[in-house]
Amino acid sequence: MNVVSLYGPVQGDLSLVEAALNSIRNTDFPALAEMLGHVLDTGGKRMRPALALLAGHYRDYNLEQLVPLAASVELLHTATLVHDDVIDMAATRRGRPTANSVYDNAASVMLGDFMFAHAADLVAQTGNVRVIRLFARTLMRMATGELDQDVSAFDWSRGVRDYLRRIGGKTASLVATACEGGAIISGAPEEWIQALRDYGQNLGMAFQIKDDMLDFTGDEERLGKPVGSDLMQGTLTLPSLLLMETSPRDNPIKTFFQARRGSKLKLELAVRAVLESGSIARSREVAERYAAQARATLDGLPANETTRTLTGVIDYVLERES
Amino acid sequence: MNVVSLYGPVQGDLSLVEAALNSIRNTDFPALAEMLGHVLDTGGKRMRPALALLAGHYRDYNLEQLVPLAASVELLHTATLVHDDVIDMAATRRGRPTANSVYDNAASVMLGDFMFAHAADLVAQTGNVRVIRLFARTLMRMATGELDQDVSAFDWSRGVRDYLRRIGGKTASLVATACEGGAIISGAPEEWIQALRDYGQNLGMAFQIKDDMLDFTGDEERLGKPVGSDLMQGTLTLPSLLLMETSPRDNPIKTFFQARRGSKLKLELAVRAVLESGSIARSREVAERYAAQARATLDGLPANETTRTLTGVIDYVLERES
Repeated sequence: MNVVSLYGPVQGDLSLVEAALNSIRNTDFPALAEMLGHVLDTGGKRMRPALALLAGHYRDYNLEQLVPLAASVELLHTATLVHDDVIDMAATRRGRPTANSVYDNAASVMLGDFMFAHAADLVAQTGNVRVIRLFARTLMRMATGELDQDVSAFDWSRGVRDYLRRIGGKTASLVATACEGGAIISGAPEEWIQALRDYGQNLGMAFQIKDDMLDFTGDEERLGKPVGSDLMQGTLTLPSLLLMETSPRDNPIKTFFQARRGSKLKLELAVRAVLESGSIARSREVAERYAAQARATLDGLPANETTRTLTGVIDYVLERES
Repeated sequence: MNVVSLYGPVQGDLSLVEAALNSIRNTDFPALAEMLGHVLDTGGKRMRPALALLAGHYRDYNLEQLVPLAASVELLHTATLVHDDVIDMAATRRGRPTANSVYDNAASVMLGDFMFAHAADLVAQTGNVRVIRLFARTLMRMATGELDQDVSAFDWSRGVRDYLRRIGGKTASLVATACEGGAIISGAPEEWIQALRDYGQNLGMAFQIKDDMLDFTGDEERLGKPVGSDLMQGTLTLPSLLLMETSPRDNPIKTFFQARRGSKLKLELAVRAVLESGSIARSREVAERYAAQARATLDGLPANETTRTLTGVIDYVLERES
């Protein structure tokens, strides 16, 4: 799958989103401009803004509203990453030093706040109060999901159902909102809005599960972070939770957690146990189930290039290696 | 000045704002509900929401829009305090332990994010895109002001002009927005909106200068924080900046700063130098000047109970002891 063609009919318009993101660096405060540059030049795939544009492509493809919407989604996403990295004390993301490691926690908290505010201003530029409220409620869900993850760190009594709820709030809700927002702005009929929202929700679940699998199976250099970094943070994701379910009594994850950020050897044993348990294959099945649901929601939409592109995004999300 | 009558015609309606603030605790996440309770029950004077209601009292006093607006202002204010306390590693605020000291930094960052999101949802409930964008831009100014303060900590080369710009962003902008937002919602004519915005901006400046004076002159028990806590954080406020201007070469603040969070004795010497220098009286003069400007803006408004109440708030801000 070639990233250049991944987003089909809206691929070219992503440069307008990029320009909108760049323009927020025009602040008369040089330190802030530098920090914004650091966190926005991630080399990320801009999946969320692309989805906002694609969802807005079925009816009135009005870039004057869709571009601020798409930029707002990406900014909201990036702002939550900045705060997540403060919370997790993460040193690198996608192979680059995090804001909190280059600057400090204090500056990173404020940087994230500034980005939230800018995201709010961008979405307000659509002039659509329904979409504005959708964004506010999504940020509430995302913050709650992250809080949930923090509270449950090193807590192995919380199972798969809790995990699915958590990633539903932390990740899938914004992907769903990107799609729903684009559809609303374009004036799509209510059934299409709902279908695109469901598509985004299911795609977001598959995306996060794949992300959590890559944390075990991925290549450190391509991922830009060490293998097993979720376990290191005390975060149980689907692969480790499935192992906990099959061997609840005694397993290397429990041993690692009981030592609280225990030795590197204990972490390696835990990672190896996950890899050898078949939990990755079972996680893949769960991700496939969400992907199938995402595909099914597209049946209610016109069979055109936009829909084919959205199908391609599902395949990409499952197959990607970073 | 009696707080019960301080807010005149809108005093009783503040209970509706209180109810709106309480209702955000209705979350199915108990840990979050507890944290929200902790930070919202401050015993604060709810000046910002009262100003929003007062500014909305000149024309169509529509509580269905004004109450969400007022609650949003207070929530935005409280959310920034939660993040400020993380940034400053503050242990107490108004005599109560801060969120970051009761819970931790990670939870407090997310708590603040959740509150920002809820504030955005509340202001969106007004359905007024002009007001929504006003709020977003205000949060941008506040975050920039806080960043500015952080960058300039322990930097004594930055003078009074920088300080005034900083508190303009950090404090006065939200007070101005509370007034401007209420006036817009009520359908006031454009000159009144501008007058009320200017009133709020000048009142906010006087308020923050008085706050910074109290940090030197106040009673620790009534303030709920130790005297000299700004200097302890490395923050130069007007009283200390005025001393730095008159004795630039050699003064106890510089000695304290050069030792970076130096000894308690050095801090006491710095506080005493400020108290004995006449800087407090000169700060008072600056605050009075802003208060006079706030009073002058009210000349353009009807001479009624609401305007008399807004005048009373200016007096209160200057005379308060905590």
